Amino acid sequence: MIAKKYKDMLEEKSVIRSLAEVAGQRAAVIGRENVFDYSLGNPSVPVPEAFTRAAISLLKEKRPEELHGYSPTLGIPSVKAQIAESLNGRFGMQYGPEHIFPVSAVAAAIAHALRAVTQPGDEVLTFAPYFPEYGPYVELAGAELKVVPPDTGSFQIDFEAFEAMLGPKVAAVLINTPNNPSGAVYSASTLTRLAGILTEKSALYGHDIFLISDEPYREIVFDGKEQPYVSSFYANTISCYSFSKSLSLPGERIGYLAVNPACPDAALIVNMCGQISRGIGHNCPSSLMQLAVAQTLDLTADFSVYEKNRNLLYDCLKEIGFEVVKPQGTFYIFPKALEEDSVAFCKKALDYDLVLVPADSFGCPGYFRMAYCIGTEKVERSLPVLRRFAREVYGK
Amino acid sequence: MIAKKYKDMLEEKSVIRSLAEVAGQRAAVIGRENVFDYSLGNPSVPVPEAFTRAAISLLKEKRPEELHGYSPTLGIPSVKAQIAESLNGRFGMQYGPEHIFPVSAVAAAIAHALRAVTQPGDEVLTFAPYFPEYGPYVELAGAELKVVPPDTGSFQIDFEAFEAMLGPKVAAVLINTPNNPSGAVYSASTLTRLAGILTEKSALYGHDIFLISDEPYREIVFDGKEQPYVSSFYANTISCYSFSKSLSLPGERIGYLAVNPACPDAALIVNMCGQISRGIGHNCPSSLMQLAVAQTLDLTADFSVYEKNRNLLYDCLKEIGFEVVKPQGTFYIFPKALEEDSVAFCKKALDYDLVLVPADSFGCPGYFRMAYCIGTEKVERSLPVLRRFAREVYGK
Repeated sequence: MIAKKYKDMLEEKSVIRSLAEVAGQRAAVIGRENVFDYSLGNPSVPVPEAFTRAAISLLKEKRPEELHGYSPTLGIPSVKAQIAESLNGRFGMQYGPEHIFPVSAVAAAIAHALRAVTQPGDEVLTFAPYFPEYGPYVELAGAELKVVPPDTGSFQIDFEAFEAMLGPKVAAVLINTPNNPSGAVYSASTLTRLAGILTEKSALYGHDIFLISDEPYREIVFDGKEQPYVSSFYANTISCYSFSKSLSLPGERIGYLAVNPACPDAALIVNMCGQISRGIGHNCPSSLMQLAVAQTLDLTADFSVYEKNRNLLYDCLKEIGFEVVKPQGTFYIFPKALEEDSVAFCKKALDYDLVLVPADSFGCPGYFRMAYCIGTEKVERSLPVLRRFAREVYGK
Repeated sequence: MIAKKYKDMLEEKSVIRSLAEVAGQRAAVIGRENVFDYSLGNPSVPVPEAFTRAAISLLKEKRPEELHGYSPTLGIPSVKAQIAESLNGRFGMQYGPEHIFPVSAVAAAIAHALRAVTQPGDEVLTFAPYFPEYGPYVELAGAELKVVPPDTGSFQIDFEAFEAMLGPKVAAVLINTPNNPSGAVYSASTLTRLAGILTEKSALYGHDIFLISDEPYREIVFDGKEQPYVSSFYANTISCYSFSKSLSLPGERIGYLAVNPACPDAALIVNMCGQISRGIGHNCPSSLMQLAVAQTLDLTADFSVYEKNRNLLYDCLKEIGFEVVKPQGTFYIFPKALEEDSVAFCKKALDYDLVLVPADSFGCPGYFRMAYCIGTEKVERSLPVLRRFAREVYGK
């Protein structure tokens, strides 16, 4: 009895995947270097060498039975302690190892967090534009995703729309800052106001409303600024983190979930994650990876190329006449398309070997996403092509 | 709204975990070397050196952005092809890469398989004695686990009991051979008969009944014998495999699911696994681990110590007068306790610093499990203690 639910999901074509296929076919004809593929968020800068050295020395020096042995269900205690200490030092938090749950990157962290703090039928709110995978994440956890419309002026939060949707069935609010796809970085004032509303509504409805903070881009912030640490604004926060972007390790599937120690249920939630894992396949990360990242917690890959690319693209798009908010972080930029139908816009761009992603599935029709985690040389070569496309097709 | 389901699970104490805690406390007093801990199935032999060399050379030689980059949702194509080729060579199968889904070890493989071939409310049958984690695996996938009573004479299958329970609601049968905890290896004749019944009942009920084969101990078979390859007996088989035991890599969370190419829905099921992953947290394995194990697919750790330990323990237990079936594989032995209440028996054994696991949670009350993946020297030192325990407490 093949499960209908997953079979049906297969039939919904992913726009990003279809685009990647077209780009791949085109690359086979004209060469990969001639396709300006802005579709995929795969980091293009290398992991710091210190990580590679740490992994090699673990493999060479540690007794294999110990290095590769089972880690406890709740993670390797020394790694949890090191993660807590690093967060405390950087963000003035009070985490202990009992608040940290290492897991196979941010999708797994969100899968655990959603199952821990929702009951079947609960609602989860998120803000457009949002990462389209939130749909299956929430639905397959048994809850219902509701999307607050975007504030396209700044891509901060439209608080009026948010308050209108924050009813008694909402168990959790899922945010992503720095944001994929907009590149917005929620300010301290946005986070303060968000926390205030959540506190007020929790009291009004007589139950906790959890903040699930999806923050894999936490360190990728430009202009010398920083992302204010979300959890420091609101006690009932579960931070979902991954080293995929910060250390350029997406294939290694390593991250963690951290529950604010001020959350009354903090230790309970982490313990519950151990139980949730039993049902969803023990997606704990590789023990080698846990031990290696523990040695490079305060490092990041070199993000200067992303900032350089952001500057080049933003200036060019503005010059052409695109409506676009300057990204403050991530490696995405999110302009308004030059016609209402952004799917049609992105299809036309393909004729110029520009692979852009329409934002309908991000809850923001009419916009498109460019992932500029590619070489600067390629970005530079793409700019005259972008200009030509806008001129020839849209008279810009 | 903390999820009641997982909170309740926390309150059910795990017998194995409680025992491990007691053993740990005792080790702190008398030294770890003096506690005869037979409770945990953590491999005690090292990974083959070829694996370590492969991992180091990948880290040294491959471009980091490529080595650590995202792998496709359905796994790294070259790794899938190598796994297929290895299985075809060893077991005369016809797998292609499209039948293989790399995943973070066997718990994750079973989590995907169960979700792919059951609908909510379906039944899944397994055979006692069984790995107690099957309970949460099946329940949290939305199906219901039913346990066929054991054939304690051989720990093969009690076919009469099986047929009586194989009703129209059964969507899948979950087997584990070589078996944890009995050490039984299902024979070709057992598998032939099992396949015959499944074929007959599938026709009778008008729907496929899937065989989910949990086989992390596939290569740990003694006396120069081999485990007949389960999938070769029945088309609708999903093999769930892990390198945890075969390569002594449990902490690295790497394995795969392989669907028999003769299964009409084979490629569909693998594609569905990609969808299932989206909801349960993308538990794909580390890309470094995928690439490293692909170079050592036909190797195993040296299991001779397990066979030596099996011989020592089996001979000693028989000599003492235990009722015990000789294990043909794994690193477990499964004797009948010397009193009806095996929990009481194991508690009394603790006074002798013998850590044994009562089998109530394995669906086989009155028996106990010993995991002999420990050094032979320690097994040897434990034998006089076992003898003294049986003599002093039970007059054996």
